[in-house]
Amino acid sequence: MTAYDKLMSFQRETGALAQVAGRLGWDQEVMMPHGASEQRSEEMAVMESILHARRTDPRVGEWLDAVDDGALDEEGTAHLRHIRRSYERGLRVPAKLATDIARITSRAHRIWAEARADDDFAAFAPVLKEVVRLKREEGAALAAGGDAYDALLDDYEPGATAAQLSGMFGALRPRLVALRQAVLDRPQPASLQGTFDEQAQMMLSQTVARTFGYEMARGRIDKAVHPFSSGSGDDVRITTRTNALDPFNCLYSTIHEVGHAAYEQSIRSSYRFTPLGQGVSMGVHESQSRIYENQLGRSRAFTSWLFTRMTELFGDLGLDGPDAFYAAVNRVQNGFIRTEADEVQYNLHVLLRFDLEQALIAGTLEVDDLEAAWNERFLSDFGFPVDKPSDGVLQDVHWSAGLFGYFPTYSLGNVYAGCLHKALRAAVPDLDSQMVAGDLAAATAWLSENVQQYGGLYEPRDVITRACGEAPSEAPLLDYLEAKFGAIYGL
Amino acid sequence: MTAYDKLMSFQRETGALAQVAGRLGWDQEVMMPHGASEQRSEEMAVMESILHARRTDPRVGEWLDAVDDGALDEEGTAHLRHIRRSYERGLRVPAKLATDIARITSRAHRIWAEARADDDFAAFAPVLKEVVRLKREEGAALAAGGDAYDALLDDYEPGATAAQLSGMFGALRPRLVALRQAVLDRPQPASLQGTFDEQAQMMLSQTVARTFGYEMARGRIDKAVHPFSSGSGDDVRITTRTNALDPFNCLYSTIHEVGHAAYEQSIRSSYRFTPLGQGVSMGVHESQSRIYENQLGRSRAFTSWLFTRMTELFGDLGLDGPDAFYAAVNRVQNGFIRTEADEVQYNLHVLLRFDLEQALIAGTLEVDDLEAAWNERFLSDFGFPVDKPSDGVLQDVHWSAGLFGYFPTYSLGNVYAGCLHKALRAAVPDLDSQMVAGDLAAATAWLSENVQQYGGLYEPRDVITRACGEAPSEAPLLDYLEAKFGAIYGL
Repeated sequence: MTAYDKLMSFQRETGALAQVAGRLGWDQEVMMPHGASEQRSEEMAVMESILHARRTDPRVGEWLDAVDDGALDEEGTAHLRHIRRSYERGLRVPAKLATDIARITSRAHRIWAEARADDDFAAFAPVLKEVVRLKREEGAALAAGGDAYDALLDDYEPGATAAQLSGMFGALRPRLVALRQAVLDRPQPASLQGTFDEQAQMMLSQTVARTFGYEMARGRIDKAVHPFSSGSGDDVRITTRTNALDPFNCLYSTIHEVGHAAYEQSIRSSYRFTPLGQGVSMGVHESQSRIYENQLGRSRAFTSWLFTRMTELFGDLGLDGPDAFYAAVNRVQNGFIRTEADEVQYNLHVLLRFDLEQALIAGTLEVDDLEAAWNERFLSDFGFPVDKPSDGVLQDVHWSAGLFGYFPTYSLGNVYAGCLHKALRAAVPDLDSQMVAGDLAAATAWLSENVQQYGGLYEPRDVITRACGEAPSEAPLLDYLEAKFGAIYGL
Repeated sequence: MTAYDKLMSFQRETGALAQVAGRLGWDQEVMMPHGASEQRSEEMAVMESILHARRTDPRVGEWLDAVDDGALDEEGTAHLRHIRRSYERGLRVPAKLATDIARITSRAHRIWAEARADDDFAAFAPVLKEVVRLKREEGAALAAGGDAYDALLDDYEPGATAAQLSGMFGALRPRLVALRQAVLDRPQPASLQGTFDEQAQMMLSQTVARTFGYEMARGRIDKAVHPFSSGSGDDVRITTRTNALDPFNCLYSTIHEVGHAAYEQSIRSSYRFTPLGQGVSMGVHESQSRIYENQLGRSRAFTSWLFTRMTELFGDLGLDGPDAFYAAVNRVQNGFIRTEADEVQYNLHVLLRFDLEQALIAGTLEVDDLEAAWNERFLSDFGFPVDKPSDGVLQDVHWSAGLFGYFPTYSLGNVYAGCLHKALRAAVPDLDSQMVAGDLAAATAWLSENVQQYGGLYEPRDVITRACGEAPSEAPLLDYLEAKFGAIYGL
């Protein structure tokens, strides 16, 4: 066996173990009896420590040194890029720092949950300071002289930099603020009325998931508190949730997670358990979930099909035909919560977090000033004040978990979705007439063929560039949003 | 850290990984999408290879050598006994032999399933010969000069020998054959009539499981093709199955698995992930499942409570009161299949297998003569001929999986259950009046206190001896069966 073969054999085992750990995470959210949580955290800790030890195993370093890079094909080169990157990042973070971060974020998560329930940012601030201090340290260690925030961001979006994202997001923000204001100045369309049987919602979710190409033979749909997708290859499971008053929550959570899951299901099967065998970045992942959910799922064409299905299933929806249904699906209204935001406002929530967390890591903003900075920025972009911390600075779990650099990938995913949607429309000119008939096959096949199948083969930005035939920019997303919401709201 | 501390820390990690592998097994039977089976076997293979490597890790040998045995308390001594035994057994089996067995049994399992479906023993015989050859080899390697079958048996029932079991079983067989014949010469009691809603069966299963002390906060009940119990400590899950025509199948499968699960749930929590943190042997495990299922669950007292619950839930059962219900629950009838057998005949099925598999390993019986030997013995004990291989020599999965030495633990469990039942009746004199009211608390508390809490602390036979105050024998089981079925059938 060559050094490369040994390396890959070792990596495939590590990949299989990572799948097992992921399945355990799914089980914890969906199936585990509540009395098992302490035992489970011990099991997870052992799995994590084995995975960590394998990622920084000295043999990996020896094999990496011994590989003849010149003899590798495109896939071999990509494998090596991933393995080298992960190995080097692992070595840069001292073991004590990694342990400290794991311990403090576990504590911070508990304290955050309590502080949010009590609407008391001051109770969370001390432990958040510790998290920020350690993440600054980790960022500096990873950056090895470069920018600490970029180094953290690289964990979620390899190759991206804050400067590059700020360029896109800087162009996004003013036009979104303006669009939001224009829309909210117009009369609101009617919203969905009634109560909706939750079992029927789950059945419709199954139908819709299949319609969007989710392979049920290699996945399953369960209910959980938070919708998520989990796993790769032939075992990719999603969760959704139901609310008797709001079937859109269930349906669009499902479609969103199907976007993530279809990506994982569509990766070339030969990549199983290798570094290429999973979605290449959070941004590209989110581009799939968002294009499924929004550009396709919330389109005039698809909602027309959905209107008919829902009327058959639930009877009168209290809406006057497919146009009113389309407007109800795409209703824009004031709100504090990122995860409940519509397409127009969602990125404003994210951009706020992106700017604040950059400043926190750079040290130009301290935790003591974070709540005020949040509230000021919210008022500026949304035009009304935050009413309480749980609707503001305490609403998201990310910072308590040490996930600095994660937020911008949400908006990057939306930007990528905008680019892909433009290219998809050009490639499938009669997309609307297909979607009106509930036929998403051409759209999902195009995404599978041009994005999903490659897994980790190309760098994230390159996947999008190759699919679209041009470098990604925020313009297609803005054009799409202005046209769509301009039409719905008669701007 | 002392060598003992290092050893135990390593063992706890191994124990946690074993729990994870077990959970994966549960997932595979209950939740996994069917398209994931190939991917899952690769994941399981990696988990197994890591577990195997840890069990024979040279550091374990070094720590074992360095431990000061004299400084250990009772629990430490027991830990060391388990670890040393597992380590030494691991070393005795050459890696190539272990791999060969894993490969051939995986193949044999597939071929067995096909052969059983085709009722064609000749199709299974060649691969079974290979399995037997390798298991003889493994037994000889493990025995290191001793008896090969005993060495295999030791995997499931540490400390037991075929000679010791043959003593008990030799006394069991003639009295069971006689009891069976006497019972079958009598008129049959009426059986349950009607169809029974399967959701209602599952609801009743939940109630009954709780009644028998199964803690739902640390477990869950799902449906699966085969009932089983899985996991230890705070996450012990069971499965059952439903059949609209036979609610007893669901209920008594549940009670049986609750016996296994209660054992695992009741082990001292300080033993978590250690070699003491699980049931000590298959025989002791089966003693718990069988006493729950039969001596308690199929008692006149408990079935009286159950009759009322089932009548409330399902309406008229077509049976004339609790005596008729009790007789229906305990109906004895001719049948080929071990897993469907009643209390009187069950052990005759097991003893047949025990004698044949001993002869196979000893080389006094060859696979080519196995089907004839099975059919001859069956005719002799049951008085009617086997009609086809799937009702005879091909009915059980065990031999295809290489599980030689497993079968006798079923009957040993029944013998132990008989002993424990005698002791329990002495300790809780008013047990029947409690069970009539659906109160199993004193019975399950006695078993928890006297057997279950100890996990692996004592040797299997010693656990039973301590609980009963005398060495186990087959006499209490025989006395119980003759009295019970004598009364039901008016002998």
